[in-house]
Amino acid sequence: RRSDCPINFAVEIFGDKWSLLIIRDLMFKNRKTYSEFLNSEEKIATNILADRLAMLENAGLIRSHKNGAKKSGYKYQLTTKGVDLVPVMLEIVRWSATHDKDTGTPAAFIERVVNDRENFINELKDSLSEAEV
Amino acid sequence: RRSDCPINFAVEIFGDKWSLLIIRDLMFKNRKTYSEFLNSEEKIATNILADRLAMLENAGLIRSHKNGAKKSGYKYQLTTKGVDLVPVMLEIVRWSATHDKDTGTPAAFIERVVNDRENFINELKDSLSEAEV
Repeated sequence: RRSDCPINFAVEIFGDKWSLLIIRDLMFKNRKTYSEFLNSEEKIATNILADRLAMLENAGLIRSHKNGAKKSGYKYQLTTKGVDLVPVMLEIVRWSATHDKDTGTPAAFIERVVNDRENFINELKDSLSEAEV
Repeated sequence: RRSDCPINFAVEIFGDKWSLLIIRDLMFKNRKTYSEFLNSEEKIATNILADRLAMLENAGLIRSHKNGAKKSGYKYQLTTKGVDLVPVMLEIVRWSATHDKDTGTPAAFIERVVNDRENFINELKDSLSEAEV
């Protein structure tokens, strides 16, 4: 590691163009499988996706399970360490919605971040808790 | 742009290993000049630093001024758009301090993020306001 700074700890894990999009898919969009991530709107390349999933699993932010009866691959979920990024993600959304004039963020989402932050965080964390998967 | 998603908006700007460290230097460490960033503990390479400063200025997160009477380069500061990353940065610090057992985050900093968040955000924003520089 380059330093013991907390910002450095974070960027060494998810400081790239794709990792937070995978976290987003798992956190807000109910996407759980390789092909669901691959089909996300930003069109991640398959080799980059495989690399980032392995890195995020190695860093303890996600975990994978064999996908039930299906032969095709794995289902992913956020760990507690991954779920704990909810407040970071909400603040990023708030910042982007403020500064991107073409933002696609739903107004109702921003309204909850601004006016009902703690409840929104707790609801999201509860809905993502590992026991549910 | 790859999508109008607010997470994507953010990672397209600061999704790399270095940009948030420059933001950190400006936000929390009172570093303002090229050589101060260059001497930060993570030892950014000079070409990467020049590239990231240009990108952050182009994205409207920082601005530069001729460094007073000195002949050597510029002084940088956060714009309002950059200052508005304070809540994002505080949540990243909280997350890293929770999940990095070797974190260098001062306990007093975390205590304020956890127990006095709104005041801490406002104090930081005030101290960074553009008028002061």
